Amino acid sequence: MENVLQRLLPAAEIVPERLHRAMRYAVLGGGKRVRPLLAFAAGELAQADAARLEFVAAAVELIHAYSLIHDDLPCMDDDVLRRGKPTCHVEFDEATALLAGDALQPLAFQLLAENALADSAQAQLEMLRILALASGSRGMAGGQAIDLASVGKTLGLPELEFMHIHKTGALIRAATMLGARCGGGLGAEEFERLERYAKTVGLAFQVVDDVLDCEASTATLGKTAGKDAAQAKPTYVSILGLARARALAEELRGEAQAALSPFDARAGRLRELADFIVLRKF
Amino acid sequence: MENVLQRLLPAAEIVPERLHRAMRYAVLGGGKRVRPLLAFAAGELAQADAARLEFVAAAVELIHAYSLIHDDLPCMDDDVLRRGKPTCHVEFDEATALLAGDALQPLAFQLLAENALADSAQAQLEMLRILALASGSRGMAGGQAIDLASVGKTLGLPELEFMHIHKTGALIRAATMLGARCGGGLGAEEFERLERYAKTVGLAFQVVDDVLDCEASTATLGKTAGKDAAQAKPTYVSILGLARARALAEELRGEAQAALSPFDARAGRLRELADFIVLRKF
Repeated sequence: MENVLQRLLPAAEIVPERLHRAMRYAVLGGGKRVRPLLAFAAGELAQADAARLEFVAAAVELIHAYSLIHDDLPCMDDDVLRRGKPTCHVEFDEATALLAGDALQPLAFQLLAENALADSAQAQLEMLRILALASGSRGMAGGQAIDLASVGKTLGLPELEFMHIHKTGALIRAATMLGARCGGGLGAEEFERLERYAKTVGLAFQVVDDVLDCEASTATLGKTAGKDAAQAKPTYVSILGLARARALAEELRGEAQAALSPFDARAGRLRELADFIVLRKF
Repeated sequence: MENVLQRLLPAAEIVPERLHRAMRYAVLGGGKRVRPLLAFAAGELAQADAARLEFVAAAVELIHAYSLIHDDLPCMDDDVLRRGKPTCHVEFDEATALLAGDALQPLAFQLLAENALADSAQAQLEMLRILALASGSRGMAGGQAIDLASVGKTLGLPELEFMHIHKTGALIRAATMLGARCGGGLGAEEFERLERYAKTVGLAFQVVDDVLDCEASTATLGKTAGKDAAQAKPTYVSILGLARARALAEELRGEAQAALSPFDARAGRLRELADFIVLRKF
């Protein structure tokens, strides 16, 4: 995945160099790559060609990376540390960071438009639509807006879940479903199971993030720890407490595994990922 | 066009409401709509279906609107007035403005992905690729980065032209070519002529912008006048002087008209637009 992203990003020597350096800085050399891993794992289940999966995995990771750059900006979370390095606007400057995010987004759509990824061009248009919906105001960007509106407010569990289904869930689902769509091996019921898996895993990811933000150190996380509490952001931990949040993550892991139960060994990577997402320490 | 944009933008009552209100605020009720006009005019030449052109015109205008929101942010041009109204971050807040721009961009790609716009899905994928390239680091966003790097520097005419070919030219060319691609009426040589027209008109647009920024008032422009000089930005006027900049715009208008010369009356709107772009007073 690192090699793929290296190759697909504009070279640092191409004009405008500083912008391209900022794009590469924000995308390369760090991150758990959970979305690409999900795309590859779902592609394995659907017997998809690895060459197709590379483009899909890169596209969702570029969208994710752009959202992190903008999320870290002073007018949003105002964070200085990401993946153990200075955030993009600290390393470069705010304007360059803003534009780097702005430019990563169309690069993701370009990758899905200019490479053959599905058995028909029509199916590929549908993939572009899925990525657009997942990224937009009723997907990830909308989730960020709901998150903003929630600072300092008392949210219930349903409102918190609604926010995360958009903010992180939409792109995690898109990564999984786009990976599966690169292959031809799945029927309608299997797509439905995969969607349920992706939704559950997406929520589990967020619950675990909240738990880690509460209990881990900045060094382990590679980003500022404890900032949810400092910003009075509602989290699974603030609503449920640490023990019940941990139990919820475990429960979601069980649901994700149950969604995969009729699949054969080709779902092995998806099963491992559900475990990784819940049991990870960073 | 106003009705089309009204209809295609998410309703202000849909969650997240504030984000959707900001998106609508920034897109609706103002602007010359030059890019949609070019898309429609090129579509007329190519005998394209008006229903297709609406989506293409809206998509390029959404990209343009997002770029204005981000361009006006404090970390970029830090402007308070746009289209005679407070800029998006002044009317809402910086974070909401950032996200509104972020969410307008995928909406543009969604429109091109989910509506039938060309005679084949493959041709439509190519249209998505054109929009992605025009928006990205080697198109509009790259032009913004080159512009940033140029503040306070002495640029020559070639460097200034290189910046504008990216910053405003890329999307103006995309609007024109995407409009033409909605129809089936053009051959390779005609596409080439249209491309030359769009490139010339795009440059003329910027030269005239610089002239107007220098000589017009804030009230006429609907945005802050004289800000190029205040920010020590290189412009056609600062390099050529007012009289030679005006003459250059006139020359470019002639070139644009010459590119259209073999076309029949179906190029009428394109001819009018070249005149409008150079002779406008706002």
